[in-house]
Amino acid sequence: MDRLKVYIIGATGLVGQRYVQLLADHPWFEVVGLAASEKSAGKRLAEAGWVLDEAPPPSLADMKIEKLDVDKVPKVDFVFSALPSEVAAKVEPALAARGHVVLSNSSNMRMDPDVPLIVPEINPEDLKLVEEQRRTRGWSGAVVKKPNCTTTILNLPLKPILDEWGIRAVHVVTMQALSGAGYAGVPSVAILDNLIPHIRGEEEKVVAETRKILKRDFEIYATTTRVPVLDGHTEVVYVDTERDFDETAVAEALAKFKGLPQELGLPTAPQRPIVVRSQADRPQPRLDRWEGRGMSVVVGRVRRLAPRKLAFVVLGHNTVRGAAGNSVLTAELMAKLGVR
Amino acid sequence: MDRLKVYIIGATGLVGQRYVQLLADHPWFEVVGLAASEKSAGKRLAEAGWVLDEAPPPSLADMKIEKLDVDKVPKVDFVFSALPSEVAAKVEPALAARGHVVLSNSSNMRMDPDVPLIVPEINPEDLKLVEEQRRTRGWSGAVVKKPNCTTTILNLPLKPILDEWGIRAVHVVTMQALSGAGYAGVPSVAILDNLIPHIRGEEEKVVAETRKILKRDFEIYATTTRVPVLDGHTEVVYVDTERDFDETAVAEALAKFKGLPQELGLPTAPQRPIVVRSQADRPQPRLDRWEGRGMSVVVGRVRRLAPRKLAFVVLGHNTVRGAAGNSVLTAELMAKLGVR
Amino acid sequence: MDRLKVYIIGATGLVGQRYVQLLADHPWFEVVGLAASEKSAGKRLAEAGWVLDEAPPPSLADMKIEKLDVDKVPKVDFVFSALPSEVAAKVEPALAARGHVVLSNSSNMRMDPDVPLIVPEINPEDLKLVEEQRRTRGWSGAVVKKPNCTTTILNLPLKPILDEWGIRAVHVVTMQALSGAGYAGVPSVAILDNLIPHIRGEEEKVVAETRKILKRDFEIYATTTRVPVLDGHTEVVYVDTERDFDETAVAEALAKFKGLPQELGLPTAPQRPIVVRSQADRPQPRLDRWEGRGMSVVVGRVRRLAPRKLAFVVLGHNTVRGAAGNSVLTAELMAKLGVR
Amino acid sequence: MDRLKVYIIGATGLVGQRYVQLLADHPWFEVVGLAASEKSAGKRLAEAGWVLDEAPPPSLADMKIEKLDVDKVPKVDFVFSALPSEVAAKVEPALAARGHVVLSNSSNMRMDPDVPLIVPEINPEDLKLVEEQRRTRGWSGAVVKKPNCTTTILNLPLKPILDEWGIRAVHVVTMQALSGAGYAGVPSVAILDNLIPHIRGEEEKVVAETRKILKRDFEIYATTTRVPVLDGHTEVVYVDTERDFDETAVAEALAKFKGLPQELGLPTAPQRPIVVRSQADRPQPRLDRWEGRGMSVVVGRVRRLAPRKLAFVVLGHNTVRGAAGNSVLTAELMAKLGVR
Repeated sequence: MDRLKVYIIGATGLVGQRYVQLLADHPWFEVVGLAASEKSAGKRLAEAGWVLDEAPPPSLADMKIEKLDVDKVPKVDFVFSALPSEVAAKVEPALAARGHVVLSNSSNMRMDPDVPLIVPEINPEDLKLVEEQRRTRGWSGAVVKKPNCTTTILNLPLKPILDEWGIRAVHVVTMQALSGAGYAGVPSVAILDNLIPHIRGEEEKVVAETRKILKRDFEIYATTTRVPVLDGHTEVVYVDTERDFDETAVAEALAKFKGLPQELGLPTAPQRPIVVRSQADRPQPRLDRWEGRGMSVVVGRVRRLAPRKLAFVVLGHNTVRGAAGNSVLTAELMAKLGVR
Repeated sequence: MDRLKVYIIGATGLVGQRYVQLLADHPWFEVVGLAASEKSAGKRLAEAGWVLDEAPPPSLADMKIEKLDVDKVPKVDFVFSALPSEVAAKVEPALAARGHVVLSNSSNMRMDPDVPLIVPEINPEDLKLVEEQRRTRGWSGAVVKKPNCTTTILNLPLKPILDEWGIRAVHVVTMQALSGAGYAGVPSVAILDNLIPHIRGEEEKVVAETRKILKRDFEIYATTTRVPVLDGHTEVVYVDTERDFDETAVAEALAKFKGLPQELGLPTAPQRPIVVRSQADRPQPRLDRWEGRGMSVVVGRVRRLAPRKLAFVVLGHNTVRGAAGNSVLTAELMAKLGVR
Repeated sequence: MDRLKVYIIGATGLVGQRYVQLLADHPWFEVVGLAASEKSAGKRLAEAGWVLDEAPPPSLADMKIEKLDVDKVPKVDFVFSALPSEVAAKVEPALAARGHVVLSNSSNMRMDPDVPLIVPEINPEDLKLVEEQRRTRGWSGAVVKKPNCTTTILNLPLKPILDEWGIRAVHVVTMQALSGAGYAGVPSVAILDNLIPHIRGEEEKVVAETRKILKRDFEIYATTTRVPVLDGHTEVVYVDTERDFDETAVAEALAKFKGLPQELGLPTAPQRPIVVRSQADRPQPRLDRWEGRGMSVVVGRVRRLAPRKLAFVVLGHNTVRGAAGNSVLTAELMAKLGVR
Repeated sequence: MDRLKVYIIGATGLVGQRYVQLLADHPWFEVVGLAASEKSAGKRLAEAGWVLDEAPPPSLADMKIEKLDVDKVPKVDFVFSALPSEVAAKVEPALAARGHVVLSNSSNMRMDPDVPLIVPEINPEDLKLVEEQRRTRGWSGAVVKKPNCTTTILNLPLKPILDEWGIRAVHVVTMQALSGAGYAGVPSVAILDNLIPHIRGEEEKVVAETRKILKRDFEIYATTTRVPVLDGHTEVVYVDTERDFDETAVAEALAKFKGLPQELGLPTAPQRPIVVRSQADRPQPRLDRWEGRGMSVVVGRVRRLAPRKLAFVVLGHNTVRGAAGNSVLTAELMAKLGVR
């Protein structure tokens, strides 16, 4: 089978480089081009400020970065976008209008009712919104979004709990990694021996996007904080369930949860989307963030604090499952299902 | 006025040294002796492994540390104890039986009904339990406890909220400093670029002690975590109130909260037990932990998320207000009230 | 005595704010104005992105920041400059030509032969270059520089060693604090669990400026690195001396070293410019950077490794003694000596 | 071919667990047992306090740890020892006397003239000391040592420089990782936002062991420090060479350096023992410590500062190349050469 052609825009940031990593030697996809802003245009990928710990993938290290121009994006099967949201808000619709199918990491348009906001294990059926989007907007292409990183990591364990026991209310407190703010997002002098109990706009996203993904209107309260951890968002979650539960049953339901990506055997699908740890002091970012090559979330401390009062801690890799990995998995799903 | 005589036991740990700092040049108290385990006995304080960032106070640096022996503790007005709880469980009752008034940092006996568990601004009236304790146990001395550090920091803002609006439920998630585990408590290789979502025994203490201090039986759910911050526990709190509130009114009630220590002008009492910040990104441990010389807690992000649903973040210095400072303030209160 | 009037330009960066701190309640100087770039102009100091851990000094918190304009700088006794070097290169000569006496933190002009590069305890006599500068350049004002932070901290202990035993060669390796790169200089994701063994342009400055300050041409080799420490540059130094020495004698010579600022009792002069520690594991940044209110350097590990081969470690606060504090002390010296 | 049988003593510390990792699925060696102190005896490896970030290797996770008893160590081909030095000083000679060949990480006996102190790429010929050791001590077994971690990492680049240009003097300053002190070696409160400019006994080892390994008596001066980095020792090195050099030629000589392990294609031998980076800001611990699966050292900043004055920075993984990996490579060499 010929590999599908893909193009990456915003290829030089932390998430853009995760796209590069995940797509460099992908069995189904072939990266045919990279675009970024003027500053990087004309440089080889390896010279344009590589910021991930692992070296640039040899197969793409010498690819020249092009200046992003909506009229010069080649005809490909998928465009992966890691643009800043204010740039994406202009570029992505223009691309969709020109027939491109854009898988996007940015926050613009996420809450538009005709825009799929996909966690492939949870709401693959929402991909059908693509048709409505095309009809409504007169586009031949489409824009498909992944949720905010914190939201994705939270929603994976919420889904099986919702299905089995129902949810009345969620209180969540997050401890988010530095990479979530982008390479230059958090100065070192601001965060060493410190934490910052606020992330602009994040709490609103968690609330609104969770309701859209899970299609429920339960109470949800979020406080999001930044901590001195490189990668891996940790979230402490209290869930008021509709029906009472046994804490062992919850742990089992989480551990055995699977979705369409697992059924279809998609290349980037982790065997287990949710890994459950029994040790009292897990999950920990440094020990657990690479579980399932960064595509599993890890849950621990599953406790029944009172009747219908569940508590747990969930951790996920914010730039893999929380960002680029989730979009790549979505693209695999679209390719398999023929949504293009 | 002659200064009251005090003696410090367990003087070589992180909390013991905070006692030393706070008492070294105290206007009412005079440190007449220091005791610790065999390992430090006979050494000068400055030679016995000083671990605080600030240098040992010159007035006590040369004092010889004695080996702790309950029969050799001199007759003083107050004994301050920073012993490990399992040692304290034996030593403190023995001292009280011998007529000593012990102000203790350790967790043993805290939940005994005849033991005062004091945050001086909140429940000074509980000092009267000393009489019951003496009657019941036949002691001429007494043991008076300070709560767990996390509990004290949480209860200060809960108190005015309880008084004004009532409390139905509390969900709290903490991000606690390294010093809370003692000097050697958290190895650096365990916590750099990491966090640990569990602290042994801590959550149970927060729940039980809060109910004892506030004398209410509302729902309270706690998850306690360790983060790479040197000093200062941060707590994210959701409160379901009995009656609805205006968020500005809550901020004002917190900011103007005062207790008996402020009325009496006790030397270690901060002018404002609760300082409220309006900036969205505060409190932060490194910027706010020394507010009120470590005796104020700092509250930020006061929000009304829904009717009767309050959220805020509170931060306090865990070894000052959360430990030694709270005990010193309690002793001042006892001295002033004549409880000895 | 009326206080001398001073004006701060570049008042919003890390070093600019240290100037503000040190000058806010200065016994001799009165801050009459603050200037910065367009971005901050019109804002109150406290609103313009205060980045130091300590709160803005109340006496200046409400002062409005002006847009820097060389023609609108008022007639004052001293202008303190913390501009970026490329801006300073244009602004400072223009100010000097207009009659202003500029005390500057920036690296431009430092190596010009008619520009004083002053560590007040070491080469106060170089202030006389002001006359030559005025003659040569036809200025009524002047530009006086402080050395690079690393250089100042290194040169303080080198001076008494040079005077007593002579120096043939110096090998230095530095471990420099994050604040040395400015507030946004080092992203947190770049430095957590890491170090960076290079600081652009730094090594050349250390070599050239040391020779200018000490007026000697000995061999000097420098490697400068960045480490995850908030404040305080640590430098490991090997010195080949001309004459052999006793290591105790070196420690004593360092500890008793004093300069003109100490003789004149200048307000910002530390009692001891060099503090010597005997403990094997000192100096440490977190424990020693505030020695002498940040104006002393702390030396430890003084060792004679072989005949005429000396080793030691020196630490200093990079934004106080290494930057703003050194300039303020220089201004005090100029005020006292009447160099204006 | 049957795999050779190996036994690990001191299997529960940081270095012991690195042995476990490196030997778990080794092509030549089969781990037949693990021993540690009483505390861990009887536990499964995975339960006995696993401290590495990666999970215990599945093939050994369930192996029971035995209580170390010199009389019960089974007959194996190699015993790998990661005992604390004071324990090793008793146990290792007893094992050698009983016929065991011990590859040891501990510092005892390293400087004994009849004890091989091996970096396999540098001095494989010193393995012949085993014969002398047996003759002198009447042992049927033997003790073979790896150098101190800092020494190994330093000596790899020194070797080709010595061979090509000669060495007159070395000045080295190290910035060493936390894991070098063992799991509980450095408390987090001691090192966050800090560094410690002294490591007990380390400098003496670097000096003495380098002379033994390289069989030269040049001047060598070392200052060793601890920095907040998890893994990877960084060393800044100045070398006075006998003959002048071209800096490009030095970089090339380092990059092409190979030893007997590479010639023999030993399983743990990295393709290139020394990897040279041309970027000015490398090597960095987080980016470079896993080069060659932790068995390569990475050199950067190769500079000619003056005639015959070379400077560079070298980084190596302290518990792999600096410890367990070096011993495993040595055992492979002994197996291949038939030294047993």
